This record gives sequence, C-alpha cells and structure tokens, in this order.
Amino acid sequence: MEGVDHLADERNKADFDVEQMKIVWAGSRHAFDLSDRISRLVATDPVFRKDDRTMLGRKELFKNTLRKAAHAWKRINELRLTEEEAYKLRFFVDQPAFTDLHWGMFVPAIKGSGTDEQQQKWLPLAYKMQIIGCYAQTELGHGSNVQGLETTATFDPKTDEFVIHSPTLTSSKWWPGGLGKISTHAVVYARLITNGKEHGVHGFIVQLRSLDDHSPLPGITVGDIGMKFGSGAYNSMDNGVLRFDNVRIPRNQMLMRFSQVTREGKFVHSSVPRQLVYGTMVYVRKTIVTDASIALSRAVCIATRYSAVRRQFGSQNGGIETQVIDYKTQQARLFPLLASAYAFRFVGEWLNWLYTDVTQRLQVNDFSTLAEAHACTAGLKSLTTSATADGIEECRKLCGGHGYLNSSGLPELFAVYAPACTYEGDNYVLLLQVARHLMKTVSQLDSGNKPTGTTAYLGQVEKLLQYRSDVQRAEDWLEPNVLLKAFEARAAWLSVACAQNLSKFTNPEDGFQALSADLAEAAVAHCQLIVVSKFLEKLQQDIPGKGVKQQLQVLCGVYALFLLHMHLGEFLSAGCITPKQGSLANEQLRSLYSQVRPNAIALVDAFNYTDHYLGSVLGRYDGNVYPKLYEEAWKDPLNESIVPDGFHEYVQPILKQQLRNARL
Amino acid sequence: MEGVDHLADERNKADFDVEQMKIVWAGSRHAFDLSDRISRLVATDPVFRKDDRTMLGRKELFKNTLRKAAHAWKRINELRLTEEEAYKLRFFVDQPAFTDLHWGMFVPAIKGSGTDEQQQKWLPLAYKMQIIGCYAQTELGHGSNVQGLETTATFDPKTDEFVIHSPTLTSSKWWPGGLGKISTHAVVYARLITNGKEHGVHGFIVQLRSLDDHSPLPGITVGDIGMKFGSGAYNSMDNGVLRFDNVRIPRNQMLMRFSQVTREGKFVHSSVPRQLVYGTMVYVRKTIVTDASIALSRAVCIATRYSAVRRQFGSQNGGIETQVIDYKTQQARLFPLLASAYAFRFVGEWLNWLYTDVTQRLQVNDFSTLAEAHACTAGLKSLTTSATADGIEECRKLCGGHGYLNSSGLPELFAVYAPACTYEGDNYVLLLQVARHLMKTVSQLDSGNKPTGTTAYLGQVEKLLQYRSDVQRAEDWLEPNVLLKAFEARAAWLSVACAQNLSKFTNPEDGFQALSADLAEAAVAHCQLIVVSKFLEKLQQDIPGKGVKQQLQVLCGVYALFLLHMHLGEFLSAGCITPKQGSLANEQLRSLYSQVRPNAIALVDAFNYTDHYLGSVLGRYDGNVYPKLYEEAWKDPLNESIVPDGFHEYVQPILKQQLRNARL
Repeated sequence: MEGVDHLADERNKADFDVEQMKIVWAGSRHAFDLSDRISRLVATDPVFRKDDRTMLGRKELFKNTLRKAAHAWKRINELRLTEEEAYKLRFFVDQPAFTDLHWGMFVPAIKGSGTDEQQQKWLPLAYKMQIIGCYAQTELGHGSNVQGLETTATFDPKTDEFVIHSPTLTSSKWWPGGLGKISTHAVVYARLITNGKEHGVHGFIVQLRSLDDHSPLPGITVGDIGMKFGSGAYNSMDNGVLRFDNVRIPRNQMLMRFSQVTREGKFVHSSVPRQLVYGTMVYVRKTIVTDASIALSRAVCIATRYSAVRRQFGSQNGGIETQVIDYKTQQARLFPLLASAYAFRFVGEWLNWLYTDVTQRLQVNDFSTLAEAHACTAGLKSLTTSATADGIEECRKLCGGHGYLNSSGLPELFAVYAPACTYEGDNYVLLLQVARHLMKTVSQLDSGNKPTGTTAYLGQVEKLLQYRSDVQRAEDWLEPNVLLKAFEARAAWLSVACAQNLSKFTNPEDGFQALSADLAEAAVAHCQLIVVSKFLEKLQQDIPGKGVKQQLQVLCGVYALFLLHMHLGEFLSAGCITPKQGSLANEQLRSLYSQVRPNAIALVDAFNYTDHYLGSVLGRYDGNVYPKLYEEAWKDPLNESIVPDGFHEYVQPILKQQLRNARL
Repeated sequence: MEGVDHLADERNKADFDVEQMKIVWAGSRHAFDLSDRISRLVATDPVFRKDDRTMLGRKELFKNTLRKAAHAWKRINELRLTEEEAYKLRFFVDQPAFTDLHWGMFVPAIKGSGTDEQQQKWLPLAYKMQIIGCYAQTELGHGSNVQGLETTATFDPKTDEFVIHSPTLTSSKWWPGGLGKISTHAVVYARLITNGKEHGVHGFIVQLRSLDDHSPLPGITVGDIGMKFGSGAYNSMDNGVLRFDNVRIPRNQMLMRFSQVTREGKFVHSSVPRQLVYGTMVYVRKTIVTDASIALSRAVCIATRYSAVRRQFGSQNGGIETQVIDYKTQQARLFPLLASAYAFRFVGEWLNWLYTDVTQRLQVNDFSTLAEAHACTAGLKSLTTSATADGIEECRKLCGGHGYLNSSGLPELFAVYAPACTYEGDNYVLLLQVARHLMKTVSQLDSGNKPTGTTAYLGQVEKLLQYRSDVQRAEDWLEPNVLLKAFEARAAWLSVACAQNLSKFTNPEDGFQALSADLAEAAVAHCQLIVVSKFLEKLQQDIPGKGVKQQLQVLCGVYALFLLHMHLGEFLSAGCITPKQGSLANEQLRSLYSQVRPNAIALVDAFNYTDHYLGSVLGRYDGNVYPKLYEEAWKDPLNESIVPDGFHEYVQPILKQQLRNARL
C-alpha cells in the first residue's frame, strides 16, 4: 500500500483550485515559494527529525536542541540564506531554542533601544553569534506589571558604573528563554536609580557568563527554572532564573536611545519619542496573530484529515462505517475552527498593513493613529491566541482517543502553544486595555471627536443602537452588510451599556474595576467585529482561481454565524436581531457546513504543510494512519525489552506472593 | 519564615465553620475520617513522593510506578486495610498504574459477567494478585462503537476451544491500560462465531504472558503504544497494543453469565437479564462524576490560593500591589469553577443514591427507571468531565506564567484528566444518547406517558413554554424557584424546538443526523438543569455548622447565574426571561462574587487536600510560594552541571566562529 493516497477521493471532491488557494493562504507567490522551499529543505534533513522528541529525557532533549540550533546556523551560513530565509528555516525546525530569543528579542531590543553607537558595538557581535543574548524582564514576583519590577540599577558616579542588584527573592529574573544555560549576555530590565532618585524601568546590557569557559561571572547566580507543560514542547528551552549580587557594568551599557544617564549621574530624556516603544509592541503582537493562524491551521489540518480517515458507527450490518467528518456534530465543532484559521490569517495580513502604516506615521512624528492601532493589536492578540489554544485542544478531542497519543502531534502542539495566552500581555489584561480605549472613545463622542480606524463604527452609535436586522430568510444572512451591521450593533451596544453603567460610579476607576468582567466582554465583541470586517474586506479584493473566492465566502459566513450563535444572548439583548433571526442564522450555518464538507480536505491542503512540519501520524498527507500508528508505537523506550525494567524487583514478588520479604 | 501561614489573614476572614464544610464536602463524617487518615498516611511515606515525577524519562517513570504499586500493595497487606481503605490508598498515591485496571476493570468484569463457577475460579487469584489483569476492548480502528470490533473468537467444537484472532491491523487491541508490559491476563472482547454464525461481542479471559518468565505466550504480540500527553501523567501507565494469531483458549473462559456456548457449539442466552450491563455503566459513570468534582476542586484549590498570594498592579507608588483574587475578572473566571466543583460534588452524591435505587430495582426485575437513569448518568458524565477539563486549563491560566511550570501541578493535572472526556463514552456521543432519550420522552407526551425522574418537568411542557419569569430586582434571582423554572423552561423549549424540527424530516434518522448539533445543545441544557436542581435540593436538607448553608446558597447562585449568563441566548430565545432580567441576573452574579471573595480560601480548605496530594507549589496550604518555587527550580536535571551537556559540541563552536569545521 506504500504510496497510495487514501485521501485521493476527498481531494477529487474539491470544487476549487487548491494551488491558487495556497497562494492566498501564504499571502503572495513569493511567500509561498519561500515557505515551500525552506520547509522541504528542513523536512529532508535527518538532523531535524522530530519523531523521537517526546521520548527524550530533559537533558537529552536539551542537547538535541543545541545540536539542531548549531546545524541550523551552519546550514544558514553554508547556503548563505537571507535574513528572511534564515527566519523561515528556524521556524520550520519547529523546536523552541535559545536562538529564538537571541534573534527575536535580544537583537531587536538593542536595535530598538540602543543608540547608534551602541548598535555599532553590539549588533555585529550578535549577528555573528559571537555573543548570545536573551531578554530578562519578568521576575519571580512580577509578570504583567513592568512598573512593579524590583531589580535595581544604581548609578555609581565614582566609578561611572551601574550596580545591578536583586534586592529580594521575588526580584529574581524568572522565565527568560535562553537564560538558564546558554546566553552569554542579557538585556536586563531594572529600576534606574541615580543620585538617590528613581527614574523608572530601563534596559541594560549585562554579560552573564565567561566567554572562555561559560561559567557565570562573579555576583551572578543563574540556572534553569525546571520542567514545563508537555513531554517536549518548551522543555527544549532553558527558561532561566537569574540573581544579581551587586554586579557592576559600565555606564554605556544602559540602552540610551530614549533616555540617558550622564557622566555626572543626571537623568535626561532624549529627543526620540517614547511612543516608538508602542510601535514595537504593535510589531510583536501582529506576529503573534499570524502565528495563531499557523498553530490553529496545523491542528485543524490534523483533525480534518483524520476525521476523513476515521470511521465510527453508522453501519448496522458489519459493513463499512461512516466517516467521522460526515457527522454534523463533528462539522459543527471542526469547521468553525477551520474558518477561524483563515479569518486569523487575513486579519494578520491586515495587521501587517497597519504596522507599516503606523511605522510610516511614526517616522514623521504622527502619533494620531497609535492609540487605536495599539488597542487593536492588543485585542487581536488576545482574541486569536485564546481561540487558538482552545481550538488546538478541541482538535485533539475531535481525534478521539488517538489524539491523546504524542504521535498525533496534538498534545505537543497544545503544550507549546499554551504560553501565547500569557506572554506579551496576559489575554485578560489586554482585553481591559481594549475596553479602556473603547470607553474613552465612547466618552469623547459628544465632544465631537470622530473615532477612527477600527472604532470608526462608534461614530454612528445612535444609528447602531436603533439598528434592527431585516433578515427574513436564512440565506439573507449571507449578505455581507447584514453580517457587518449585526456585529457593529452588538459591539456598539455592549460598549454603550458599559459606559452607562460606569457613569453611575462617582470614582470611574472603582467602576472600571467593578465592571471589568462586562468590559472584557465588550472588548471581545469589538475584536470579533474587527476580524469579521477584515474577512469581509478581503472578499472585496480580486481573488483569482476557480472557486477560491466562493470557498472563502463560505468560510467567512461560517466564522461570523458561528460567533453569532455562540454569543446569541448579546445580539438579542442589543435588540439588533430577533430570536427568529437567530434561529435562521443557525439554519444557514448548518447549510454552510454542508458546503464546506466536500472541500474540507483541500482547504487544509492549502496550508501546504509538510508531514515533517505537521509532525502528526493522524494528519499525514496520504491518510495512511493506522499502519503508521502501529509502527510508531514500537519506538517507545518501554518496548526496548520484552520484560520491563523493574518487573523482577516490583511485580514478580507480587505474583509469587513473596512481597512480604521483598526490599522495595 | 518557616512555619508561617501566609494565608492566615484570608482564613480569618471566613464567616463559616470550615470543619463542618469539610464533612459536607466529604459526604459524611466517616468519609472525611477515612480520606483524612489515608491521605496523611500516603503523604508521609517517602516512597510515594511525587515532586520528581515529571523529570523522569519514560523508563524511569515506569519503574518508579511499579515500585509505588508494589509498596502500596505491601502497605495494604501489612496494615490489613479494608477494600475501601485500599482503594483510597491507591487513589491518594495519585499515579496511574496497572493496578487501576486490575482492580477497576478486570475484577469487576469477571464479577459482572462471569458465572458463579468462573468467579470462584478466577477471583481468588485476582484478589491475591497471583494473576494481574486488564480490560481489552478498544481496537486501533474502533473506539466508541463496540459493535464495530473486529477481533474474532471462533468456537472449535473439535477441541472445545475458542480461537481468538486479529484478522486485520485495525483489529489490534489498542489503549488498554496495564496491557503493554505488565498484565498476565486480559478480559478480551471479541466477535463470537460458532457454527459459522456471528453472535455479537462477548468477553473472554485470555492469558497473555507466562507466569514463569513473563514472556508473551505463543501467538500473542504485545507492547506499549507509546508516549502520551504530558510529562508524567499517563506515561506511568503501559497502555498497550495486542494482536492474536489464532490463540486457543478453553471454552470455559468465555464469560458466560449472560449467554453461553454449549459443548456442541450452540449459542444460548441465560435467564440473567442483559439490562444488568446498564447498571454497570451507571456505576462507572457516577464514579467519573465524583472524580470530576475532585479533579476540578484540586485545580480550583491551587488557583484560589495562588490568586490570594499573587499580587499584580494596583499600586502607583511602588507600594504593595493588589492581590490578584481581588480583581473582578479573576473572580468572574475563578468563582464559577469553585461553584462548579461543589455542584458536581452534590450531583455525584445524588448519583450514588440513584445507583443504589437502580440496583435495588434490578434485583426485582424492575427495569422501569433504567433508561432514564442511564441517560442521566451518561449526560452528567459528559457535562462534568468537559467542564472539568476546561476548568483545569482555565485554572492554569488564572495562575499566569507560573501555571505553566510543572511545579504548579496544573499541567500534569490537565494532561492526566483530559482522557476523561473520551473514555467510557465520548462526550459528544453521550450527549446524543441523552438527546435521543429526550426526543423519545417528548414524542410520547401526547400518548399520556408520564415522564419520570429527571425528565419529569417535561410533563409540564405546555406550562413551561408559556413561562415568563417575574424577576423585577436583581435579588429576585436568589429565589430557588425562580432559578429552577428558568432552567426548566429553557431546557423544555430547546427539546421541543428540536422535536418540531425533527418532525419536518420524513426519515427521523436523517433528521437526527442533520440536527445533531442542536440536539447536543438541548442535552446540555437538560443536564445543567439536573445539576442546578440537585444543588437546590441539597439546600433543602438540614446542613449544620455556622454559615455553612449560607455559603452553599451563594455558590449555588453563582453556578446557576453563571450558566444563565453563558447561555443567555437560549433563555432569551425561549422567551422565559427578558434581556432586562438577564442583565439583572448578571448584576446579582457580580454581587455574589463579592460574597464569595472573603470565604474563598476557606471554601477550598474545605476540600482537605494534603500538600502531597495537591502536588503544587502554587497551591501550598501555607501560601509560601516564592521561596519554594525557587527551591524547586534547582532540582531540574539541567541544573546538575553549570555548563550543560552539549555546550562544547554545539554552542562553543558558534561562539568561537568555528562552526564550519565542527562535526554536528
């Protein structure tokens, strides 16, 4: 049966051009070619094999990760890969490593916050990896609240140095990836003190380990913080703990682009606008949104393919059973996730545009769109990562018992994705930031401040509060404007309801605290509106390829109507739709599921993932699941011997009724 | 600071009698004493330590599990523990092991399906563990659908034997715990064939391994199926694969309580009613509901205590930050889970009564309540396990970044709990069974069949469809009857709406398939009604102890109003409440959260979990979290050496720019 495509029938059913959809998913022909080429390069290199990853102990796994990182760096240099190609290569290696932090946080921190002089000194070393760096911000007792950090950097004018110190146990740096065992340097965030006065939190370049023998420098205590969720997952990363006992660094290792400490110890702000920091946050979070679409699409690809392979029930006479994907409960759980993957992809694409726009404006000191852009990326980061984490776990359950095996790839995908809900802003903290922006926007409506960007709809708040949908038949829900208006009316109603409740409090901050659960719901509604509206906008574009746009229209409908069904109470409370219209929406949703069904396999093929990247026996391209599951099983370390280690000491005495005398 | 209780202030705030609540939670004074005594016994025994569990490789972990199982059995015998005490001891050891299947599935299968003669032969061997057994039902290609199993047991009248055979790859037994490396025997489920005719699936006792040297017997291929979700979790269990190549067993090893094959190969049913099998399913599933309340309460205990220890934001001047538990978003996520833990506990208690009732009726051949009891336990298994799995992961997120560390205990708790959503009936398959029962009940209403038990409310369906809540103020929602009627009206409306839509189909089975997503929602509404009504019934009882009943009333309100808020769309669509009343319910919910807040720590103390059983640095009874997190970190294998294994081969060459020549 080698070489047989068990999903060929499914692929033949599709009524759209899969190759064109691949381009749409990738974003461009260039992006497709790049991913396609690099992913195959990684997949065919035996050093990058992943199938044994979850069976390795912590130390073996870590060593294996170091090997892959070195091999990746070697290949990058040998093949003279561009920065873009090198990034893709590390991406497809698909194993968290210290290099992620070096390239993704350490280098950008110096680029973003270092002066030209500092960049000239440090970047060449980092680019050649003569030093390896990490990003040491969070502390044992302090996560989300950067202003609560306790580590101090006290200027000593006598020696022209900063003294970096950890005054308490809770001030220990905790979590930074790459810190535990590998990094030679770190950008350390600390509370700046000069002339006995505090000046907030700033970044400092600190060498941690000797470049000769890799031992920690005097005054530095550093180590790994221990095992984390999953068998492999982030256990390939040396998340670290770091304590400073009065460690001295030269004054010029404070990152001084935004503010400086002079030779005399005077703290001064530079002329560079601090708002640029928000530009960086927009950048990081828009990347996270794109990553969400990738992680979710991987899980959906696995669950969709296996749902077409797997059969259960439906036969009374021992005949062939029904494909699981034909069950409506399976479709009602799986297809909204498929639609979400596409929706997140397109909103990520739009965020790329937004980031470019913000950056261009920042260059000419135009900060007018920054607050809105910041709130919007924060909210989308929260929405998409929460939905993706939940969605991966749902995909695991959709694979039945076998989804629980590591060879399904799904447990690891979940464990490695889960932190996205917490890092770069806890998802609930972020929702409240969005809510603050919404409340501010609503409160300024009367003063004639016209809301812009994704909050523009709030300019029509009066109209929206009066809006009543005119849907009469199920198919009316396919009308883009019908969907859009319903989502706008619901979001506007929730924001206004919160604003009205807030106004009852004499102290607005007390009100914000008391109502924060409701405010988070208003923020979610706002963010869902953004995703729906950007999907609808995407459909306004010219999209070539037979049937491609039609498929996307179906998926857009699934995404929006699924959300409407899930949050029906809000739409009904807003009064923008009636229970009867809600029921018609559900009817239409069922009909859309039937349209997705024949195209489901082709829609996940469009992600163009190699079997290596997918890392799942259940999600194999050829659908040849059962023989491979069987084959994988025998690789487990427990199968190295017939009689397992420990049997003679601990089981034999039980069976032989000799336990009383056994030494355990 | 050793010995200081960092949560003492929190404990002093409670305005109810915690000791009395412990009895309520345990179910009785006897149950409390038993758990308290055995859990301490386990906690103080160094062999049962758990803190290193997630750092062990697969083989070490497995060996450690064998050691614990042997030690547990030794202690059980030395202390002459009763069956109840022995069960508790294995429970508090808290590490999945082959013994779970031996005692929990193998022994009960023989007791339930073996004849008196078979029981006399096999049970003494099993009780003394002279043989160790497992339960081999599911196959590589067949999970939920038992009738789809492919393994055959063909009677050979020439030798008076059954020939057990695996005709295909997908017929390989797959998943049975204890099978992979340890069990000497199994109850194997296979398709019975005699005289060339099939007679459905039956159980057979099959010896798998030699009692001398533990090697697999001729014709048997057996091994472990590989690593599963999590670092430790179920990787301590040897879930196995098993193939038969025409393995012969004597005829008297077919479990013959319900049907027999005679010496001549004739298949005959015994007079024992087959409905007894459903009694067993009720038993297993009611146990799962109780286990759900335990797993959820563990996670809630950890998240609640750490939310009181952890501080973030809320201070502008570097002063002490706000306890995370004081944030309303934290409360709105955490307290419904706390309430759910109690709710599931009480519905589990009621299921115990139901099981006793069903058993007594079965003994006098009264099957009248069986269908309803079966549907009800199936639905509650589905509802409580889904909510618990999601709830554990939510608790992990509620602990912020540190929840991702294995030392928090939460990743392992999730990974070990997740299978409960799939085993003993996939949760969606079960919901559809409930829906079938509901549709049957509704369809028989006209013919005067009075619905009983948990479906009794459907007898008043006309009234319920007309029901309009008379809530006018937020506190009206505290009225038990107001809550109950709203939940009844919503559940009735959903069932009737499904029944009406079903009636539009000419083929009812087509309709059931097409509407199955809606039917699952109706089933959920029905099950939530059961939980709410059983909580309300519990509050009708006399509950001693200062403030105990009041606390439970608050939690009952939280549970019900949280569900109402989450499913608002259904309540509004049913017309039983108005948007205004929905908003008042939300207002009341906020006020209940404030009442839970000062009692939160005491409410989780009432679970009476030892720090050993909880297995979480974040959930420590004394709240001394940060020093212990710091201490735990250093135990990681990566911290055994300053310079990690692999550094010299794979990192040094990068730093020294000598990668080109390195052998990787």
